[in-house]
Amino acid sequence: MTQSKGISRRGLFGAAGAAVATGVAGYAAHSALATDKSQAADDNGPVGFHGPHQAGITTPVQDRLHFAAFDVTTTKREELVALLKEWTAAAALLTAGRDIGQYGAVNGPDEAPPEDTGEAVGLPPAHLTITVGFGPSLFDKRFGLAAKRPKALVDLPHFIGDDLEEARSYGDIAVQACSDDPQVAVHAIRNLARIGFGRTVVRYSQLGFGRTSSTSRAQATPRNLFGFKDGTNNLKLEDAAKLEQQLWVQPEDGPDWMVGGSYLVSRRIRMNIEIWDRTSLGEQEAVVGRGKGTGAPLGKADEFDAIDFTAKNADGEPKVPADSHVRLAHPDFNNGAELLRRGYNFVDGSDGLGRLDAGLFFLAYQRDPRKQFIPIQNRLAKNDKMNEYIHHVGSGIFACPPGVTPGSYWGEKLFS
Amino acid sequence: MTQSKGISRRGLFGAAGAAVATGVAGYAAHSALATDKSQAADDNGPVGFHGPHQAGITTPVQDRLHFAAFDVTTTKREELVALLKEWTAAAALLTAGRDIGQYGAVNGPDEAPPEDTGEAVGLPPAHLTITVGFGPSLFDKRFGLAAKRPKALVDLPHFIGDDLEEARSYGDIAVQACSDDPQVAVHAIRNLARIGFGRTVVRYSQLGFGRTSSTSRAQATPRNLFGFKDGTNNLKLEDAAKLEQQLWVQPEDGPDWMVGGSYLVSRRIRMNIEIWDRTSLGEQEAVVGRGKGTGAPLGKADEFDAIDFTAKNADGEPKVPADSHVRLAHPDFNNGAELLRRGYNFVDGSDGLGRLDAGLFFLAYQRDPRKQFIPIQNRLAKNDKMNEYIHHVGSGIFACPPGVTPGSYWGEKLFS
Repeated sequence: MTQSKGISRRGLFGAAGAAVATGVAGYAAHSALATDKSQAADDNGPVGFHGPHQAGITTPVQDRLHFAAFDVTTTKREELVALLKEWTAAAALLTAGRDIGQYGAVNGPDEAPPEDTGEAVGLPPAHLTITVGFGPSLFDKRFGLAAKRPKALVDLPHFIGDDLEEARSYGDIAVQACSDDPQVAVHAIRNLARIGFGRTVVRYSQLGFGRTSSTSRAQATPRNLFGFKDGTNNLKLEDAAKLEQQLWVQPEDGPDWMVGGSYLVSRRIRMNIEIWDRTSLGEQEAVVGRGKGTGAPLGKADEFDAIDFTAKNADGEPKVPADSHVRLAHPDFNNGAELLRRGYNFVDGSDGLGRLDAGLFFLAYQRDPRKQFIPIQNRLAKNDKMNEYIHHVGSGIFACPPGVTPGSYWGEKLFS
Repeated sequence: MTQSKGISRRGLFGAAGAAVATGVAGYAAHSALATDKSQAADDNGPVGFHGPHQAGITTPVQDRLHFAAFDVTTTKREELVALLKEWTAAAALLTAGRDIGQYGAVNGPDEAPPEDTGEAVGLPPAHLTITVGFGPSLFDKRFGLAAKRPKALVDLPHFIGDDLEEARSYGDIAVQACSDDPQVAVHAIRNLARIGFGRTVVRYSQLGFGRTSSTSRAQATPRNLFGFKDGTNNLKLEDAAKLEQQLWVQPEDGPDWMVGGSYLVSRRIRMNIEIWDRTSLGEQEAVVGRGKGTGAPLGKADEFDAIDFTAKNADGEPKVPADSHVRLAHPDFNNGAELLRRGYNFVDGSDGLGRLDAGLFFLAYQRDPRKQFIPIQNRLAKNDKMNEYIHHVGSGIFACPPGVTPGSYWGEKLFS
């Protein structure tokens, strides 16, 4: 059986640099395999992997997510470094639309497992991005990193109403794979998990099928599973000055290895959609603080109209209720703090009680969680009327280092 | 709060017929809301709902799946009939790209819950189909249907190696929603579940992100999570004569109410992908019986080359091993029996042991499971080398009635 090896590519570990160097040309060769129209839309190309910031943060939000949190099982620092080097090289290939090696035999007749698992053969990258972050637990005693733990990488406090599952929370390393094609995102996580075999295990993983935010003004605002537009006032990649102020770690923040990086907070938010769906429209709109159809702030006509928190109804009550989500989360009531959200809708089957296990996998990037997510969430946890319809069941916080240049690897400065 | 109701549509129960009658025009109005390029490709239109057969069987396989099995909780036959009427009317609207009612208030100021949950507002139907089947348990004593149970709707036997979870198996009614947009498929299942409130509960539900078969020669063959092309020799909609022979219940088969229908077997097949990924290419190809790259039968060059089961290697062993999947499942060794498969890849997070909960949600339609799925699966369960890498953890069998005409409902002849 030596026929039909498909495209023979040079292996990951021998020739990653050379393969990465081919960049877009490599993608072009790959996508030429895509003969299925439904899997190869016109604009399904690659997103650049290298740069001052990691891709997958301000990148216009792709339609699908596969997020995985890994625990590191090796206790050897040099094995962790080797893993990050291999993952970085693999991610450069994957995001360029390439397999991470041949999916035929490596040496001679078929005796080795294929290097790439093969299920994305023929698929364009569809804007695949792979973004990595380090959890607080990575900075314990195992790898000698305790002194390098950023002060901003705090353990999240317990928020009122938190109902966290250990098995769906925390993690040493987070990998966020986003693509417009879910098979491409799944392929990426699977192959990174496979590369990590013997050094990491998947702690939990989450698929998301529909984005719930936009990170560019070129994108329409999508709807979450409450049926409302979500992320209207999200930070957008066009807001250059705000991104420096709210998103990217600045030199004065430190530590050095995080400058140009960002902090990710992930929250698995279960929505009680069956209860929500039996709630009146008036109640739904009062909870959110926006109209369900247009997404306009209550009292306004258009989605992007400025919110008027002083406007009152005839009865003297504010048009945007004091306990509405949009008001409590608004920068005006949070010392100007904003977040770059790029969450996803999920449905993970049903829960055994006749209900869909549905909700929002919330992902938010920020410059300093102590000034952004934590105070905002404290306020929401205490007062948000929406809490009657949601509960937070998973949680993570991760320090996402800056982007890599060719030849460097994720977190290189952390280990040097 | 009476502003921003979005598009006000006439309600489901008052005006379903009128809404359905608008058909494609209704879709056009709806899709005009779609301003997001990534969610509105050129060819995202509706699939016709009415016809002699249900849509979603031979329909070219859409990219995404939301499958749900419901248990009926009412014991009143008339409530079950009412439910099926309401579901049919809703499905006609949903598949035409319409909401099932207004998502603003029904009567007056916002005091009622919206009729539609709203998360698909602005999204085109993306080839949404909704297909319904009745499980054996629906024919118990509750609804007086025992005498109408088709002989072909057998309880599936225990197959060697079956490791079925009750909570992911069986069900009174199955609903298969397929669309190229997962948010549209999820919206469909959710709104049907909501309509069924008080009469049905979701027993289990399954999302699939990547199709693993084609049902038209216009579609390329996709890859499953073993990285192999899957469904090369699937029954295709172009095989008109074979469809009559293998897929659709014929008048001579009976019962009358099933003529033009088909039997669906669903199997949740967990793949041990971490073990598979450590298996040599030669072993993988021997297990499948095809080359991993091209998908060609072993000993052949092209995917669609006829399989030569007599060809031998120099050592006298057959090129296509006797225990390979493609051989054991082939019609030549199964009295000519074929299946129309339209399964999906799934990853449902991880399993708590560091592994992805990944596999294939197998869906196969056929004229008579006693002559098709059951003998094929008995042979596979006994001899298939692939069994080292998979196990069946969920199972269902459903009688899918023929299609509906305007004014009729799913299963009308079963109840008349």
